[in-house]
Amino acid sequence: MSTTRTTTPQLRNSLNFSGGPGALPESVLQQVQQSILEVPEVGLSILGISHRSDWFASVVAELENNIRLLLQLPNNYHVLFLQGGATQQFSMIPMNLLPGKSAPAEYLHTGYWSGKSIAEAQRVGNIHTLWDGTATGFGSLPKDEELDFAADAAYFHYVSNETVEGLQFHHVLGRDDVPRVCDMSSDFLSRPCSAERYSLIYAHAQKNIGPAGVTVVLVRDEALKDAPNNLPGFLDYRSHINAHSIFNTPPVFAIYVVLLITRWLLKDIGGLSNMEAINRSKAALMYHALDESNGFYRGRAAHADRSMMNVSFSLPTSEIEKRFLAEAHSAGFSGLAGHRSVGGIRASIYNGLTVDAVHELVDFMNAFQKRS
Amino acid sequence: MSTTRTTTPQLRNSLNFSGGPGALPESVLQQVQQSILEVPEVGLSILGISHRSDWFASVVAELENNIRLLLQLPNNYHVLFLQGGATQQFSMIPMNLLPGKSAPAEYLHTGYWSGKSIAEAQRVGNIHTLWDGTATGFGSLPKDEELDFAADAAYFHYVSNETVEGLQFHHVLGRDDVPRVCDMSSDFLSRPCSAERYSLIYAHAQKNIGPAGVTVVLVRDEALKDAPNNLPGFLDYRSHINAHSIFNTPPVFAIYVVLLITRWLLKDIGGLSNMEAINRSKAALMYHALDESNGFYRGRAAHADRSMMNVSFSLPTSEIEKRFLAEAHSAGFSGLAGHRSVGGIRASIYNGLTVDAVHELVDFMNAFQKRS
Repeated sequence: MSTTRTTTPQLRNSLNFSGGPGALPESVLQQVQQSILEVPEVGLSILGISHRSDWFASVVAELENNIRLLLQLPNNYHVLFLQGGATQQFSMIPMNLLPGKSAPAEYLHTGYWSGKSIAEAQRVGNIHTLWDGTATGFGSLPKDEELDFAADAAYFHYVSNETVEGLQFHHVLGRDDVPRVCDMSSDFLSRPCSAERYSLIYAHAQKNIGPAGVTVVLVRDEALKDAPNNLPGFLDYRSHINAHSIFNTPPVFAIYVVLLITRWLLKDIGGLSNMEAINRSKAALMYHALDESNGFYRGRAAHADRSMMNVSFSLPTSEIEKRFLAEAHSAGFSGLAGHRSVGGIRASIYNGLTVDAVHELVDFMNAFQKRS
Repeated sequence: MSTTRTTTPQLRNSLNFSGGPGALPESVLQQVQQSILEVPEVGLSILGISHRSDWFASVVAELENNIRLLLQLPNNYHVLFLQGGATQQFSMIPMNLLPGKSAPAEYLHTGYWSGKSIAEAQRVGNIHTLWDGTATGFGSLPKDEELDFAADAAYFHYVSNETVEGLQFHHVLGRDDVPRVCDMSSDFLSRPCSAERYSLIYAHAQKNIGPAGVTVVLVRDEALKDAPNNLPGFLDYRSHINAHSIFNTPPVFAIYVVLLITRWLLKDIGGLSNMEAINRSKAALMYHALDESNGFYRGRAAHADRSMMNVSFSLPTSEIEKRFLAEAHSAGFSGLAGHRSVGGIRASIYNGLTVDAVHELVDFMNAFQKRS
């Protein structure tokens, strides 16, 4: 098919360091492209296949099974594919888990996204912010000794990876006797995560596992035993459980892309330990480049809390940052501007980004520093 | 790209009569396919472009403008692109429009989907079902003289086209001095609709205007003047208005496809009057085939209420219906099975279905009848 391009630079999907929606593997994009005119097993466009078809039921079943395999998820968990992003979960979680509880739910405020989750939860019920990094500008995460978890909390909520600030927890937080709820939107399926230690995990797709428009929720059966019976159907996890994620028309296309990603994780990558090793090596390359730059590239996060997904850094002046972004764009890179709330530069190195792409970025960074 | 097919019949996108997600025009599918690897104006995959990019802002702006052009929508209406389908709207509408009102909202129960909307609205507040076709099996719609609209209703809600039963209103219902709310999910942008007479119109995309995963809402500014201030952000229309539909990450891909459909409606079709003429001619072909079949094909809907979108009918026996579906499938047709709640046959002839496709189906139906 011919292509007309009105912009000058030759951007490359493989060099898309966007914070999200993020880059997907080339082999998956090829399959997605084919599906627009014809899903091989069906013979029809993915956009015109009924969500009630046997084929789509098999898509949901295979995807659920792949996620169970990747995470070694026990049978007492439900795997749901919902709409509304993490934002919808910010409300749905307290709506389903908070009613009837005497003690508040505990939240950590570790950055931009956990702040959003707290604001929405407070509209629903009684929330206690156990730790708040606002005063210190979210440059680091709490140390274990700073956290005094209540034994009677309704549940405990945290964000495993703060996308904006580039902060990531590298161990499981909280008490095993309090329901543990985690927003893994920006590191889900990027590494093994001890899913069986959580009551509820949620992640929108548009970082590591697919396009915007679908959100994965893993929920332990017993977490919902006290859920109220007066919720709107689409905000009640049990509606979606009972309907196997087809309570109403699901985002068929987005779910299919997530299936292709899980196939890629299982067959091409070989599972989450391998994926973690690759992601770890990409992050090591990036942070090595920062650390060896004599302060030209300044990492935002404390060393111990550095994210394997989002490498957030600044340059000596905002003028130099502008030039960095412009020259990177001319060289085919995209998505490197920091989040609008913090500025600077952010290189997001999700599953879909290859080690080679990170090498290319590091080479560009080194050359840019030399000529600056 | 090579294609492997594991099913025998050669299904054709152009002969997809599915009730939804439905067929999209071939020229749009071609553009969508190209965008998976590269959106021409950007040079990146549509799946990896940030929803905060200038390009996506231009997509939302052009799409909003196209809808305003197509419907001649006044400036006091907001155009929103949300997630969660019509089902989310079933709850959001009473949550936003009902609080503070003394009288109930009035609903018509004219079929499967209006029934769903009533059940969800009743969870939120005070609802009065003004007319109920349950007892008569939803074979027809109410006559004007059967409807005694209350002057003080909080709002009046109805479904313009009942997808399952194949019933469609062919005029605007209700009082002009009561806020009029309409679920146009299955006939939105299939014909002019006097949008300026409604306080709120909603439609998921997967019938006439795109893939599953995005829902269009048109809402008159004053309709929200009494909306409560304690709603979760994503359930408050004003959050989405203030954020120009980017309150949280929107379904970028689905919105882009809807943009392409509106371009097609404006440029290739030439507007909604032309689209209606085409849809009317397709429906005429289908109903003529039923009426001329000497009772072999039995239309479900009363003549006056026949839908231009969904032609629902039955054959003399369920055995013959099974054979009809099997032979149609072998001939390349798909999506012809009736909704699971009513059975029979349903030919959905949304915008994306061509007149030629309907001719092919009618030819098939005539031949099938002859050999039966």
